[in-house]
Amino acid sequence: VSFFASRWIEAPAGATEAQGGLPRGFRGAGVAAGIKESGLPDVGLIVCDAAGVTSAARFTRSGTQSAPVLVNRERVALNAIRAVVVNSGNANAATGEPGMHDAAEMQRLAAGAAGLSDPSAVAVASTGVIGVPLPMEPLQAGIEAAGAALRSDGERDFAEAIRTTDQFAKQVCLDVELSQGTVRLCAQAKGAGMISPGFATLLCFIQTDARLSPETCELLLTVTVKRSFERMSVDGQLSTSDTVILQCSGESGVEIHQETDDELRFGEALDAVLRQLALAIARDGEGARRVGRVVVRGGDESGVARVARAVANSPLVKTALYGGDPNWGRIIQAVGMALPGTAPLPVDIAIEGVSVCSGGAYVPHDAQALKTAVQREEVEYEIDLPGEGFETELYFSDLGHEYITINADYTT
Amino acid sequence: VSFFASRWIEAPAGATEAQGGLPRGFRGAGVAAGIKESGLPDVGLIVCDAAGVTSAARFTRSGTQSAPVLVNRERVALNAIRAVVVNSGNANAATGEPGMHDAAEMQRLAAGAAGLSDPSAVAVASTGVIGVPLPMEPLQAGIEAAGAALRSDGERDFAEAIRTTDQFAKQVCLDVELSQGTVRLCAQAKGAGMISPGFATLLCFIQTDARLSPETCELLLTVTVKRSFERMSVDGQLSTSDTVILQCSGESGVEIHQETDDELRFGEALDAVLRQLALAIARDGEGARRVGRVVVRGGDESGVARVARAVANSPLVKTALYGGDPNWGRIIQAVGMALPGTAPLPVDIAIEGVSVCSGGAYVPHDAQALKTAVQREEVEYEIDLPGEGFETELYFSDLGHEYITINADYTT
Repeated sequence: VSFFASRWIEAPAGATEAQGGLPRGFRGAGVAAGIKESGLPDVGLIVCDAAGVTSAARFTRSGTQSAPVLVNRERVALNAIRAVVVNSGNANAATGEPGMHDAAEMQRLAAGAAGLSDPSAVAVASTGVIGVPLPMEPLQAGIEAAGAALRSDGERDFAEAIRTTDQFAKQVCLDVELSQGTVRLCAQAKGAGMISPGFATLLCFIQTDARLSPETCELLLTVTVKRSFERMSVDGQLSTSDTVILQCSGESGVEIHQETDDELRFGEALDAVLRQLALAIARDGEGARRVGRVVVRGGDESGVARVARAVANSPLVKTALYGGDPNWGRIIQAVGMALPGTAPLPVDIAIEGVSVCSGGAYVPHDAQALKTAVQREEVEYEIDLPGEGFETELYFSDLGHEYITINADYTT
Repeated sequence: VSFFASRWIEAPAGATEAQGGLPRGFRGAGVAAGIKESGLPDVGLIVCDAAGVTSAARFTRSGTQSAPVLVNRERVALNAIRAVVVNSGNANAATGEPGMHDAAEMQRLAAGAAGLSDPSAVAVASTGVIGVPLPMEPLQAGIEAAGAALRSDGERDFAEAIRTTDQFAKQVCLDVELSQGTVRLCAQAKGAGMISPGFATLLCFIQTDARLSPETCELLLTVTVKRSFERMSVDGQLSTSDTVILQCSGESGVEIHQETDDELRFGEALDAVLRQLALAIARDGEGARRVGRVVVRGGDESGVARVARAVANSPLVKTALYGGDPNWGRIIQAVGMALPGTAPLPVDIAIEGVSVCSGGAYVPHDAQALKTAVQREEVEYEIDLPGEGFETELYFSDLGHEYITINADYTT
């Protein structure tokens, strides 16, 4: 099965899926350090051996950012990240000054394990329980073990080590043909598995051996994150720990200049990878049964964005998706909630291409055919608001019994 | 059991619960017209026989308001509402021009049944399925039957007729002692039962025989709705149909002047009634097991409100409440989400009086005692943000398997 499994994501032109192996200049590892009670892998390390590395990073906007996020912001050269160290099982969030000290120590230990003299070249990430001190003793042993285990094909071990309750690891390696040669693009993500007593955290790490200036790196990551991880909702909850990092070793010798066809092609590959990962995360969200895609068009950019968010976050829409119920009354309710004071609003709604509401009023349609269409694994909702010129999309998971079981029945 | 069952609502001074009977000047009825498939009562009528009635009304801010809400806004003298007609089983929402015509016809029919020459003295409300035309034939028969059944003690029948999937009817009659005599205050509400294929709708109708100017009526309703129905969340979803109406017959002969002790006392009674009804609705929300109250304090009014809303609407907080899990990591996550860009944020959190987080970091506490405390039917969360001067509260229901079952498993 192709990585690009969704009908909503076009496989990028000139890109082929590779069997594995990190891009030239990278090594990776994942080990079990005993931070997770399960004994599963919980410490991951990615190291770029090229001194000329360029990078870019994105973090959660939360007002209660975890200690690793704060340390990255304060103590890392974000455009030249050589190594990334990650632990799962403990988020090091709401841990105060001791937590900041632990995150900085984690950074220092990883620099040592990676053979780097400057800790500011190491980014840190943690995911798991909130409000519990990081167990530094097993973590130290784990980081040392990961350093010893670094391999050029360590990306699968790394992807396993960053999982929490994800049902499956999420990673891909692509070869992308550019005008001057072929570059490799790898990405590993963990998603919206819910961790007791924590919550959804998005982590994604991307490596390539293409050579990009820090500015190009920053630009491409900004644009593609906006179109992927900022266009998805599992339960509308912003994490304390979300982190996305792109590292470029340049070791392929293939340089990507701004505003070239190569930049476009590489950008399209990166875009498709991040969008498919976002979809995979929504699919994996709390044992989700189905994933929805809402497309909203209209003349007011802010209104279009608010409507998409309101539909994707509505527990009523999500439970209908779970139930395989073409309940468009809940769609129009969410639209109205997102646009207060605009009644009467001539909104059009289509589900799986079937028009159900036009000008704000119901449209007679084949209810049985629609009911069959929404039983599929992917369900599309289209909403047209007054005016033209803006369009947005959002992927979202359903809300079912598994979400309740994971988040309520298994308590601390 | 007293109507004022919650520890969070003080029974108002000088008020006693009456056995029943509408305030002087009012008659009410509820009948089964066959709009609901179940055959349960589905048409309600409240009529004030006093020509000098004063009133005030509040409606949903939704951009997709139902036809009855639009008709009320366009065609009703909202400060002199003589009669209220309500049907359950069909929301008359997303029904376009035909729906507007049906709502106006419903208004005209109710005026006839109430013996009123002017339809603009009649307010209308509908709750139930969205996007399906109102069945006018049974509705007409139902309104005529309700007119024939009007009684001075018809409030219980009326309260039954406005239910959808509410587990229990919500109504109260109070006698309130004022300086010049005793006035009666009755209220009937329906709440956040989810209706397939509709959603939560709040309706509340309040009657008194006190004499209030339209201005006083408006002022008291505005203030008390802000402190009650705007301070609750079942699933964060704004309905197309929310309607609250206060009618004052003046038939007690007891007048309430602005800025008097009587106004204060009557206002406190109205406030307690609406807050307890709001709590009852949250308790009844989708078979909720527990209800939470979040109190937020701080120096920024908008931030305080956003944090309360984020906590009350978080599916992670709601599932923890359902599971009896003192999961404060989910509280601090919601706080951070509501206040992006403010990290590090020195927030304090207490659950049931137990401090769990101070200055943004965990506080050692007796986890077992806290775990026991959150098993109760009502759980209180206190959040202190930086600064002083603003405080808000919000009631919210939990999120459990019953919500999924009601909203997903029973499909259209």
